[in-house]
Amino acid sequence: MSKQQIYKPRPVSGFPEWLPEMRALELSWLDHIRKVFESYGFVNIETPAIEEIDVLLSKGETDKEIYVLNRLQADEKDKSDARLALHFDLTVPFARYTAQHFNELTFPFKRYQIQKVWRGERPQEGRFREFYQCDIDIINPDSLPVHFDAEIPAVIDEILQGFNLPAYTIYVNNRKILLGYMQGLGLTDNAAAALRILDKRDKIGPDGVKKQLMENMNLSEETANKALALALITGNDKTVIEKARALGVTNDLFEEGLKELEYVLNSLGTFIGDRLIADLSIVRGFDYYTGTVYETKFNDHPDIGSIVSGGRYEDLAGQYIAKKLPGIGISLGLTRTLAVLVAKGLIQTKRASKTDVLVTVFDDAQRGEALQTAAQMRKRGLNVEVYHAPQKFQKQLAYAEKKEIPFVWFLPADGKGHEVKNMTTREQSAADPADWTP
Amino acid sequence: MSKQQIYKPRPVSGFPEWLPEMRALELSWLDHIRKVFESYGFVNIETPAIEEIDVLLSKGETDKEIYVLNRLQADEKDKSDARLALHFDLTVPFARYTAQHFNELTFPFKRYQIQKVWRGERPQEGRFREFYQCDIDIINPDSLPVHFDAEIPAVIDEILQGFNLPAYTIYVNNRKILLGYMQGLGLTDNAAAALRILDKRDKIGPDGVKKQLMENMNLSEETANKALALALITGNDKTVIEKARALGVTNDLFEEGLKELEYVLNSLGTFIGDRLIADLSIVRGFDYYTGTVYETKFNDHPDIGSIVSGGRYEDLAGQYIAKKLPGIGISLGLTRTLAVLVAKGLIQTKRASKTDVLVTVFDDAQRGEALQTAAQMRKRGLNVEVYHAPQKFQKQLAYAEKKEIPFVWFLPADGKGHEVKNMTTREQSAADPADWTP
Repeated sequence: MSKQQIYKPRPVSGFPEWLPEMRALELSWLDHIRKVFESYGFVNIETPAIEEIDVLLSKGETDKEIYVLNRLQADEKDKSDARLALHFDLTVPFARYTAQHFNELTFPFKRYQIQKVWRGERPQEGRFREFYQCDIDIINPDSLPVHFDAEIPAVIDEILQGFNLPAYTIYVNNRKILLGYMQGLGLTDNAAAALRILDKRDKIGPDGVKKQLMENMNLSEETANKALALALITGNDKTVIEKARALGVTNDLFEEGLKELEYVLNSLGTFIGDRLIADLSIVRGFDYYTGTVYETKFNDHPDIGSIVSGGRYEDLAGQYIAKKLPGIGISLGLTRTLAVLVAKGLIQTKRASKTDVLVTVFDDAQRGEALQTAAQMRKRGLNVEVYHAPQKFQKQLAYAEKKEIPFVWFLPADGKGHEVKNMTTREQSAADPADWTP
Repeated sequence: MSKQQIYKPRPVSGFPEWLPEMRALELSWLDHIRKVFESYGFVNIETPAIEEIDVLLSKGETDKEIYVLNRLQADEKDKSDARLALHFDLTVPFARYTAQHFNELTFPFKRYQIQKVWRGERPQEGRFREFYQCDIDIINPDSLPVHFDAEIPAVIDEILQGFNLPAYTIYVNNRKILLGYMQGLGLTDNAAAALRILDKRDKIGPDGVKKQLMENMNLSEETANKALALALITGNDKTVIEKARALGVTNDLFEEGLKELEYVLNSLGTFIGDRLIADLSIVRGFDYYTGTVYETKFNDHPDIGSIVSGGRYEDLAGQYIAKKLPGIGISLGLTRTLAVLVAKGLIQTKRASKTDVLVTVFDDAQRGEALQTAAQMRKRGLNVEVYHAPQKFQKQLAYAEKKEIPFVWFLPADGKGHEVKNMTTREQSAADPADWTP
C-alpha cells in the first residue's frame, strides 16, 4: 500500500481507549487496588484471555455474550484445535484454574486477579465490550470460616478510602436471612421467587414489591407485609439483628444468617463505622450466592449503581473438579466506574507524565554531563528526562510546561554550578544532583 | 449441568498459565520495567485488545497470524459490525492510536505500552500464542533528534541491571552504514539483497556469507570480501568508526550512519562500558528500520536469541495519517524471555505471597483486637494477614511456613504483651504494632 492510500481508523464502539491522562488515572487506581489486595495477603494470578468454549459453557446460560476466536486463514488441521473464546469474567477462569492446579495451591487460597474481560454484546448506551475487572476470592476445601466474610468489607473500604471520592456505603446482607425468613413464612418452594421480587425494590418501590408479592405469588396481604417488613430493616449495629428477630419468624437458616451478619457487623464496626450498613433488602444475584452478600453505592449517586459487589458461595468449581470449594469474593468493574466518575466530574484525570525533572541542554558538548546528571538522580528514585536537542531556553521550558514537569534543571555554565527551577514558584536555586530532592 | 458431570479442563497449547510463584516473578519484572520506562519520562498508554481487521491488514503481510473475533450467536444486524481481530503486536495499535489522537498528544511523544499480544499460529516447539510485550517508542513529527538513539541502550541496560542475570551485550548498528557501504561498493539496486545475506551470518558463518554473495548475487570475490569485511567489525569505541572508514568506501549515507553510531557510542560509553558493542553485521529486519538498530543477547546463551530489539524508522503511521512521524523504539518479549530463563535455571521463581506478618488468633474474642493490630501495621505499609480461625498453634504456624510468611505475631495474652516471632531465626520478642518493622 502506498503512502497515499490512507486508512483512517475510527474508534470501535464498546472498546474504550483512553488518552494518556485518563490512563494515568486508571493506572493509579490499578496500583492502589493491587496494593490493598496484597496488604491483606491476596496472591496474584493471571489466566489466559481465552478459555475453551466448553469450559465457558459448562454452566450453560452465557453463550450470547461470548467472542469466539478463529484464525483468519485456518486450514483443515487447525480446525481440530480446541475451540477458543475470550473470557467474559474472571470467575469462570479462576474456577477452572483452581480445578486444574488444585494440588499446587495453598489453602485457604486468597487470590486476586486484575484483567480485562470481554463481552460480545451489541453496543448500546455506555455498555463496554472490553473492561477491567478487579477480583478477589478466598476459597477453601469443604468449609470457609466466617472470618473472611468480615474481612471483605475492610478491603472494599480501604480501596475506596484511597481516593477522594463522594460518600459511599458498603451494604451487607446474608441470603440465609432472606431465604430462612421466607421459608419461615411458609414459602418453601417459592422463596427464591419472593427474593426476585424483593430485588426490584429500588425500581418499583415498597408498594410495588407488596403488590407483586400478592398478585404474582398469591400471597395474603399479611404475608406480603411481613415479607416486606424484613426488607425495610437497615442499620449498622446489632439493633438490625434485634429488629429482624422481633418480626417473630423462627427458622434455623434465618437464625444462622443473623448470627453471621452479627459477626460481620461486630468485627467491622470500629473500622468502617457509618460506611457499613446492613440492608436486609439486598438480594444480589439469584442462584450463585448462598450467604453474606455485598453492594457498594455512592450515597448521592444511586444511578451509578453498585461499584463493588460480591458474596459467599457454596461451591466454586464443581463443574470442573470433584471437590467442594466454598468461597467468598468481590468484583470491582474498574473501567465503567472510572468512566462514569470522570464523566460526572466526580474525579479528575491525572498528569500523563511522571517526570519529576527536565534536564536542559544548550550545547551538545554538555550532553554527556546531562545524561550523567540524570542518571545520578534516577538512581535516587527520581524520574528524569534530558531535553533532546540544544534548542532555545524558551522551547525547552515550553516542553516542561506542556508536560507539567515540576522542576527544570540547569547544568553548570558561565561560572555557576548546577541549578534547579521550581516551575510552580518560579524560584531558581543552586542544587546538587547527588542529594537534591523535590 | 449437574454436579456429577465434570468437564475436566486441559491446558490450551500456546497459552501459558503460571502458578502464583511464576506470576510473582513476572510481576516483579513488569514492575521494574515500568519503573525504568517512567524514570526516563515515558508515558503509558493501553489500546484495546482488538483492532479492526482493516487496520491490522493496512500494511499487508501479516494475515496468517491473526485471531478474528465472532460473536457466538451473531444475528444479521451484528454482521454489519466492524470486523475485529486481536492485535498481534503493539506497534500497529500504537501507530493507529497516534493517528487517531494526534492533536491531543505532546511531542516528542515518549510512550510505553505493556500488554499481551496474540498470534494465531499453529502451536509448535515453545511458540506462544499469547504473550506480554513491553514496548517503548519515541516519535516526533518530521524529524527526531539522534539524542534518543543514545537513550534507548541506557533504558535497556537499566532494565537488565535490575535483575541478577547472566552477562549480556547490547549490540548496536546503523542501517545507513550497511546500506551506504553497499551502495558505495556499487550495489545500488540490490543493496537490500546483500543485507539479507549478511543477516544470516550467525547461521551460515562468514564463509557461507561470502559464498552466497558471490553465487546468489554474482559479486566478484573482491567485492564479496569487502562486503564481508564491514560485517566483521565490532568494538565499543571509536576504533569501530576508524576501522569502517579504513575500508576505503566513500558514500554520504555510509558517512551519516558512522556519525550517528559514533554519537551513540560517545554518549553511552561511560555508562554501559563493555555491555554495549557496535557490531556492523547486525541487520535487524529488512524494510522497517532505517537507522540505528539494537539487539540484546546473553553472552553464554546465544540460543536464546535477542531478548530486547528495535531500531529507528522513517515513518510510524503513514498508512493512517498524512503526517511523517519518524521514531525509534524497542520491544521486549517478556513471556518468552522469562519462560526460557526459568527453564534453563538462570533465574528463580518468587514467593507467591507478599505477606510480611501473620497475626495469630487463639480465641475468637480476640479477633477484633487482631484486626485492629493488622490494620495498624498495614497503615505503615506492611502486608498483614490475620489467621482465619482460632485453631491450634501448630496449625497456624504451618500456614505461615507453607506461605513462607517471615513473621508471626502474637496478641497480648497470659500477662504478656504483643510478641513477634522471626520465622527464620526462630527468635521471639516483645514488639509494638505501632512502630515494629521487620
